[in-house]
Amino acid sequence: MAGWQEALECQARTRAKAGLTRTLRHRAPDDSVVDLAGNDYLGLAVHPEVIAASVRALQAYGLGATGSRLVRGSTDAHADLETELAGWLGAERALVYSSGYLANLGAVRALAGPGTLLVSDRYNHASLIDGCRGSGAEVVVAPHADPAALAAILGAHPGRAKVFVTESVFSVDGDLAPLAELHAVTSAHDTLLLVDDAHAIGILGRHGSGGVAAAGLAGLADVVVTATLSKSLGGAGGVIAGPAALIRHLVDTGRTFIYDTAPPPAVVAGVHAALRITRAADDRRAVLADRGRLTARRLTAAGFTVPTPAAGVLSVPAPGPEAALSWAADCRDRGIAVGCFRPPSTPDGSSRLRLTLNAGISQQDFDRALDVIVECAP
Amino acid sequence: MAGWQEALECQARTRAKAGLTRTLRHRAPDDSVVDLAGNDYLGLAVHPEVIAASVRALQAYGLGATGSRLVRGSTDAHADLETELAGWLGAERALVYSSGYLANLGAVRALAGPGTLLVSDRYNHASLIDGCRGSGAEVVVAPHADPAALAAILGAHPGRAKVFVTESVFSVDGDLAPLAELHAVTSAHDTLLLVDDAHAIGILGRHGSGGVAAAGLAGLADVVVTATLSKSLGGAGGVIAGPAALIRHLVDTGRTFIYDTAPPPAVVAGVHAALRITRAADDRRAVLADRGRLTARRLTAAGFTVPTPAAGVLSVPAPGPEAALSWAADCRDRGIAVGCFRPPSTPDGSSRLRLTLNAGISQQDFDRALDVIVECAP
Repeated sequence: MAGWQEALECQARTRAKAGLTRTLRHRAPDDSVVDLAGNDYLGLAVHPEVIAASVRALQAYGLGATGSRLVRGSTDAHADLETELAGWLGAERALVYSSGYLANLGAVRALAGPGTLLVSDRYNHASLIDGCRGSGAEVVVAPHADPAALAAILGAHPGRAKVFVTESVFSVDGDLAPLAELHAVTSAHDTLLLVDDAHAIGILGRHGSGGVAAAGLAGLADVVVTATLSKSLGGAGGVIAGPAALIRHLVDTGRTFIYDTAPPPAVVAGVHAALRITRAADDRRAVLADRGRLTARRLTAAGFTVPTPAAGVLSVPAPGPEAALSWAADCRDRGIAVGCFRPPSTPDGSSRLRLTLNAGISQQDFDRALDVIVECAP
Repeated sequence: MAGWQEALECQARTRAKAGLTRTLRHRAPDDSVVDLAGNDYLGLAVHPEVIAASVRALQAYGLGATGSRLVRGSTDAHADLETELAGWLGAERALVYSSGYLANLGAVRALAGPGTLLVSDRYNHASLIDGCRGSGAEVVVAPHADPAALAAILGAHPGRAKVFVTESVFSVDGDLAPLAELHAVTSAHDTLLLVDDAHAIGILGRHGSGGVAAAGLAGLADVVVTATLSKSLGGAGGVIAGPAALIRHLVDTGRTFIYDTAPPPAVVAGVHAALRITRAADDRRAVLADRGRLTARRLTAAGFTVPTPAAGVLSVPAPGPEAALSWAADCRDRGIAVGCFRPPSTPDGSSRLRLTLNAGISQQDFDRALDVIVECAP
């Protein structure tokens, strides 16, 4: 074995001692596990209309987009989805990416460069952090979801180009940033607000149009939204929604847009079908809200500190990484999938289960899942 | 309009004056254009077995993977493809990503960090460049495909951790890096070799196993390969192939792997079907080689400097960005799609047409396409 591999193996042993080894588990098509771990909040990944739309696009276009969007990868399916996403999110235009990760890298880079002050919530997702690091801008990490702290940071840099980056619903803890208050601060300090709405679209806001829309910020000239197409929308990919000038800028200069193969037309068409269902899915959103309240009540009664979730994500504290791992393993052995988040995937270095709600699960299975989680608790 | 939007619009006007505005054109399912612009080299994006495999996976799993690979996104379809990719590429293990872009970011970051000397071919793809920039390593840009220059750079840094990053077949000019010679240099200087084989897999090497395999470097302990699943393999996504220790490291620590939604099972299954066809597709590879020779001959006879391509990409010089744009537009008006590459998408700042070969086009259409390209030349 070469020396560099030995160095990697040595790091692996250190991680193993700290209980931080990760194992890929592959699920079969007939997997009967009750899923409280994934992000298919509305249960649309398996919706017959989503599958049918995707199959039709496969037969019409083939599998791959065969090139980047500006070469051969752009199809009517992409354009149609972008038009509907923009309307739904209340933005002038929307641009689809092959992943939320690349959308976030592209959005941060478009808005910030050397000279910009980039202020980033300390619990932001890895893709936003990487976007900040790669932008060449000065980055200040802000206390989590704290408008007063944000005001102090921005107030210390008058006359400078500034961008504040946050999620709406945070991916691990599931809390909702106080977006209206944060925007009042950014607006007062002539600062752009970039919000990753990945875990809120489909769930919050009128017609599920997201956390930004729910806060009354959709379509504002100083707000830019990113999101994924892989959570409530049941597919894959990401989107940036904002003013037309920004989207033109991304098409002309955005590296993660220009130099990436377009997402497959069949994925885009399936997401579009899911979006149409989502807009009308107040029934599914009501089920999610009920299950959020039920879960918080049940786990609080069992002695855990679990607030009612803002959307579909709940965080349940565990004593440590190994306890979290064995808790999740015991649940899995009893047919319940839950997320197990350990450093470095947790913002605060603590370990926890992450539960996600899914409106597509039967109430009976959902109730049983909560029983199992409580019974397996360390 | 807000001030930041006005600033973007001002930049857009500057680009427009320089002929550098980009326009998204969407193709319809019944698009009858002859495609000498995309990257579906073997014509597999529309292969019935690929479509059928993708439809089966859609029906078995649904559309989205519903989570990251380590949470709920990993399916048997992912594991099966990774096993077959590793075998095909001659590596111990392979790990699939949602895009080649994220695979390249992940590979560079895994191999290099602060303290590493990262040497990058000056014509490398944007994703490799971004990977280098984001790694925290010292980056030295090397003259293009130049083993002697590489030896001089590496020789000046004895005793230091070093990585050399290159493509095999370059994405714009289509030339093949002298991989065996470059590896002799990296090997002599205790340097890791990272090769992006995106434009060579499916075309070069035994069973289309790529440029690295064709150079006799597959499976070596000091060689790591990345590639896309969106070109010869007709789908979407990316892959890193290398020693098991590297793949374990990526699963445990790779940000663009851990924090990204897994690629859809239907895409992965379609790519797997395409891979099986690819391994046996010597007939399609022979058609590609014939068409490469024919294209170079025909364009050289028409007065252009166009060498026989190493794989499926040819570069045809144009007098400037606007001439390239109108040349490509004239071809498109006559039913032929060709790539038009202008700064900043060209490594050397010059504009050109990029022609790509596709074994799925009829010989009659291909011959007509070459006629049109010559007749439309500025």
